[in-house]
Amino acid sequence: MIHMKYYTIGVDFGSASVRTLVVDTATGQEVGCGIYEYTFGKAGNWQDDTVPTMVRQHPDDYVKGLEVSITKALKTARLHADFSIDAVVGIGIDTTGTTILPVLADGTPLACLPEFKDNPNAHIWLWKDHTATKEAREITQNALADRPAYINMVGGSYSAESFWAKVLHCIHTDKQVYDAAYDWMEISDWIPFLITGKTHVEEAVHNMCTATHKALYNPEWGGYPDKEFLLSLDPALEKVHCRLERAKVLTSDQPAGMLSKEWAVQLGLSEHVVVATSALDAHFGGIGAGIRPGTLVKILGTSSCDLAILKNQDVPIIIGGSVGFAHDSIIPGYLGIEAGQSAVGDMFNWFVSNIKPQNMSHSQHEKQARLLYPGQSGLLALDWLNGNRTILGDQLLSGMILGLTLQTTAAEMYQALIEAAAFGARIIHNHLEKQGISIEEIIMCGGIPSKNTHLMQTYADICRKPLRLAGSHYTSALGGAIAAAVCAGIYPSIEEAIKAMTSPSNSIYYPREKESGIYDRLYSMYKYLHDAFGKKGQAIDVFSVMKELLQLKEEVRGM
Amino acid sequence: MIHMKYYTIGVDFGSASVRTLVVDTATGQEVGCGIYEYTFGKAGNWQDDTVPTMVRQHPDDYVKGLEVSITKALKTARLHADFSIDAVVGIGIDTTGTTILPVLADGTPLACLPEFKDNPNAHIWLWKDHTATKEAREITQNALADRPAYINMVGGSYSAESFWAKVLHCIHTDKQVYDAAYDWMEISDWIPFLITGKTHVEEAVHNMCTATHKALYNPEWGGYPDKEFLLSLDPALEKVHCRLERAKVLTSDQPAGMLSKEWAVQLGLSEHVVVATSALDAHFGGIGAGIRPGTLVKILGTSSCDLAILKNQDVPIIIGGSVGFAHDSIIPGYLGIEAGQSAVGDMFNWFVSNIKPQNMSHSQHEKQARLLYPGQSGLLALDWLNGNRTILGDQLLSGMILGLTLQTTAAEMYQALIEAAAFGARIIHNHLEKQGISIEEIIMCGGIPSKNTHLMQTYADICRKPLRLAGSHYTSALGGAIAAAVCAGIYPSIEEAIKAMTSPSNSIYYPREKESGIYDRLYSMYKYLHDAFGKKGQAIDVFSVMKELLQLKEEVRGM
Repeated sequence: MIHMKYYTIGVDFGSASVRTLVVDTATGQEVGCGIYEYTFGKAGNWQDDTVPTMVRQHPDDYVKGLEVSITKALKTARLHADFSIDAVVGIGIDTTGTTILPVLADGTPLACLPEFKDNPNAHIWLWKDHTATKEAREITQNALADRPAYINMVGGSYSAESFWAKVLHCIHTDKQVYDAAYDWMEISDWIPFLITGKTHVEEAVHNMCTATHKALYNPEWGGYPDKEFLLSLDPALEKVHCRLERAKVLTSDQPAGMLSKEWAVQLGLSEHVVVATSALDAHFGGIGAGIRPGTLVKILGTSSCDLAILKNQDVPIIIGGSVGFAHDSIIPGYLGIEAGQSAVGDMFNWFVSNIKPQNMSHSQHEKQARLLYPGQSGLLALDWLNGNRTILGDQLLSGMILGLTLQTTAAEMYQALIEAAAFGARIIHNHLEKQGISIEEIIMCGGIPSKNTHLMQTYADICRKPLRLAGSHYTSALGGAIAAAVCAGIYPSIEEAIKAMTSPSNSIYYPREKESGIYDRLYSMYKYLHDAFGKKGQAIDVFSVMKELLQLKEEVRGM
Repeated sequence: MIHMKYYTIGVDFGSASVRTLVVDTATGQEVGCGIYEYTFGKAGNWQDDTVPTMVRQHPDDYVKGLEVSITKALKTARLHADFSIDAVVGIGIDTTGTTILPVLADGTPLACLPEFKDNPNAHIWLWKDHTATKEAREITQNALADRPAYINMVGGSYSAESFWAKVLHCIHTDKQVYDAAYDWMEISDWIPFLITGKTHVEEAVHNMCTATHKALYNPEWGGYPDKEFLLSLDPALEKVHCRLERAKVLTSDQPAGMLSKEWAVQLGLSEHVVVATSALDAHFGGIGAGIRPGTLVKILGTSSCDLAILKNQDVPIIIGGSVGFAHDSIIPGYLGIEAGQSAVGDMFNWFVSNIKPQNMSHSQHEKQARLLYPGQSGLLALDWLNGNRTILGDQLLSGMILGLTLQTTAAEMYQALIEAAAFGARIIHNHLEKQGISIEEIIMCGGIPSKNTHLMQTYADICRKPLRLAGSHYTSALGGAIAAAVCAGIYPSIEEAIKAMTSPSNSIYYPREKESGIYDRLYSMYKYLHDAFGKKGQAIDVFSVMKELLQLKEEVRGM
C-alpha cells in the first residue's frame, strides 16, 4: 500500500524579503525553499530623511514576492522524487504587523492608483514606522482613563507600531488618503483575501493574532474597541469601526478560504489548496520553533520578539511592562504572550552599515569581538536606538554608549551593542518570570542566531539560560506550513502538528559561570542606567555607574 | 648706518613631533621653519595594550628632533637675504609636561643604558601617561589632610599627569628603575641641561612653569613640597627631595646658560647663543599668541590648554575646579592661570583613526558635519575619553554618546564630539568668570583651529565669545623665540617682546545668535549630564535629558 505524502507551503513576509518553504507534512522536512528580496525603495522600504520615523512599502513587492518565492520553492521541491504538485494541500502566510494599507472596497490598494502612487501615506505602513507616537500616547491616555482593560492587554501602553495609532495618524495628517480609503487592512489579511479570490473587503478574514495583539480585539468586550471609545479619539474613525464591527476573526487552525482558480494557475498549483488564516511572523515563528509552556521562543532579526504560551487554566495576572497577551493568539487554547525589543539586528546593522567602522563586515567585527573578555572594554550601552518596546514601552528613547576612552576599539563597541541587546533581553525575562511565566529554556530563531555563535554565547552568559537553536532556519515559514497542515485536516490541532513537524536542534549554548558572574555586575549597571534614563522621576546616582565600569575594567584586565 | 638684525630660535617639542622657528626679533617675522616627527614606537609614543593608560617616549627622539628641526629651520632661514647665522643670538625651548625621565648623575637617561632599553619605566613618561591615577589620589588625600595649600594651587586635586604622581608610581611599581635613577628631570629642563654642556644634573636649571604647575613648587612655602610631606607619601622620595631642595628655579626671561661649544658646532651656530629657561609648551604658546589680561589663550591640539594672566595686584581668591595658578609662571609679574581638557584633538583622532567610520578623513567628516544644524542629530556627548582635567579634575571618567538612533550618521557623531569639546570649554570659561577672571576674547592656537573653520564656528556659537586665530601657526615655538630674545637682552621684559614680536590675526569668528540659542539648550543638558556623571552623590534625573534631546531634535527638524 502506498501511503500518500502531503505537502504544505509556508510563506513568511519579512521587512525586506519573503521566504517560502515547501514542507512534508508527515515529518516537517523542508523540501523546497524560495526567497525574494523586495525592490521598492531601499530594500523594500521607502524612507525619507525629513521624516526619519517613516517607513513605508509597496504592495507590489508582496504580490511579486508571493509569486516568485512560491515558484522558486516549488522548483526546488520538484527535485525530490516523492514530491508531486498535486500533493500540495495548503498555504499558510505570515507577515510583520501592524503593517497596514488603505484599500478600496474591492481591495485595491490606494498605492496602486495613479493619483496616490507618490503619496507615502497611501502605501503600506510597515510595523517599524514610528510616525504615530503622539497618537499612541493619546490612545494610551484615553484608554487608561476610560478603558483600562484595553491597555492592560497590551502591557501598559499602546504602541506607535499598532493599528489604531497608525490609522489615527493618517486621519490627523492626510485626510485625503483617509477619505479615499474604504478600509485599512493588515497586509496579513490582505494577501489571503487576494489569493482566495474575494471581491469585497468585508468578506476578508481577520486573523486573531494581529486583531488581539495590535488592534485591541478581545471577545471579553465583544471584539474590537467600542464605538464610543473610538469616536472619542476622532469622529472620523466611525468608518473603520463600522467595517470591523462585522469582521470575521479566526485563529490560524481555521481556513481563510480556498485558493482561487486564477491564483492556482498563477502559482502552478491545483485548485484544492486551502489557505490558512494568517498570523504575525513572530507567532508562526513560535509555532515553527516548537513553542510550549516553559520554553521561551526568541526571534532575533532586525528586532526581537519573545513569545511564550500558558495553558488557559494556568493564566496568572499579568500587568504592565508592555507585554502583550491574548487568548488563542499563538495557539488556540493557550494564552499567547508577546514581548520584544525594537532594535537588535537593526542596531548591529546600523553600526556596520551606517557608521561603517573600517568598512568591516559583521563577521569581521564578530571575529574581533570574540577575543574580548566580559568587562574588559569598560563599555556599557543602552540598546534603545529604535526606542524600547518591553518593558518600558516607550518609542521616545534613544541609544547610548558609555565608557568610551581613546583606546576604545570598534570591536569593543560592536560587542557592547551585542551585550546591550542581551541585557535588554534579560530585563524582559526577569519581568516575565516575576509575572509567573517560567522560562526553563530559550529557543532561538530568526536571522541572527544561526549565523552568530559568539552572540549566542554572549546571550547565554548574560541571560543565564540554556539557549537552543531552533531546528529550522525558517521557523516562521515552517509555522505557516504547520497551520496549513491543520487547516487541510492532516492534523487535528496546532499542538499535534508541532509535535510531528518540528524537531529541536542539538545546538545548545550553556551559560559559563565565570563570564556570567562578570555579566551579573554589568547587568546591574545596565539596570541602573535603564531605570535612570527610561523611567520618569527616578533621580538615580549615575556617577557610581561610570566609576564601577572603570573599576570592573581594571579588575578584568588584571585577571 | 646699518641696523643689525637679530634672530632667535624657538623649539617646540610636542607629543608626536617637534616644530622649530627662526624668528626676526624686531618684527616677529618667522624666517625659517623645521619640523621633525618622532620615530620611536607609534608616532613617538610607546603604548601597550595590556596597560592602556601608559604612554612613554625615547630621549633619542628629542635629541634627534632638536638637531634635525633646527638644521631644517636654519636652511630655510638662509633663503632670506637679511639672514646671517651669526645674528642668531638665542634659543628658547618648550616641551609638554609633566614629561619626565629618570637620569644618572651626569644626566644620561636610563633609557639609553642597554640594561634598561626595553623597560618602559626607564623611558620618558609623557604628560598624557595616566598610569599614576592611584598615586594622584593618594597625594590629593594626603595634601588635603596636611597641606591644603598645595592642593589649592593645583585647583583641588593633584593630577595623575603631574610630577610627584609619576615618580611615586615608579617607586610603587618598578623599584629597580627608581633605585637606578640619580634623579628625575622634566624633559624641558633636560634639553637645556644637555645643550648648555652641564655635566651634573644638580647644575640643571629648573623652569618655573613646570615647577609651579606640575611639582607644587611655591616660594610661599620655600619651594618644592617639604620633606615631611614627601616622606609621608613614601620614604623612598627622600632622594628626589634631596635633589630638588637645592634646585635653581628660574623664569623664562632668565637664561639657563650659553650653548655649549659642542652643540654650537652640532647645530651650525655660533658660540654666543643664549639658551633661555624653558617653559611648558602651552605657556610659550600663550606668549606667542599674545596673551594679556582679559584675553584667554586656548591651545587646541591633542588636548586643550586654556591660559589667562592677571596682574598680581588684581588677583582674586581662586578655589577648586582643578584650575592651576602660580605667580610668575607664564609671564613674570603676573599670576598665571591654567585650565584644560584632557582630550580634544585626541578625541577626534580616536574617532577618525581608531573607529574609522567609512575610512573617512577629518576633512571629509568636517565637510558633512558642516551641513548639520545645531540640535538636529539629537546627540549629546561627554568629552571625557581621557578623563576630565578642568573642572572635575578626575582622570577616572569616561566618554559617552547619548541620543543614538538607527538613523544616526558618522558625521553626526563627529559633530557631537566637536560640540562636547566646546561644551567642556564653556564649563571652564564659566568657572573662570565666576572666579573673577574676565574673558573678553579668546585667542585660538595649536594644531586644530587654523585647519578647522567649522570647529571654530561651533566653538564660537557654543561659548558665545569672539574667537580670534593667533597670528602664528607655531605660537609655542614663537613664544620660545620671544623668551630667547629677552634672555639675549634685546627686550627688557616678556611683555615688551610680546608687543614687538606678535601681531593678532584678523580672522575672527563671532557667535551666531540663533545657533547660540539652540546651543544654550544643549549646553544646559550637557551641564546636567556633566554633573550627573562627574560629581558624586548628585542623584540627578537624567530621564528628562534624553526626552529633551528628542524634543529639541523634533523642533529643529520642524524649523
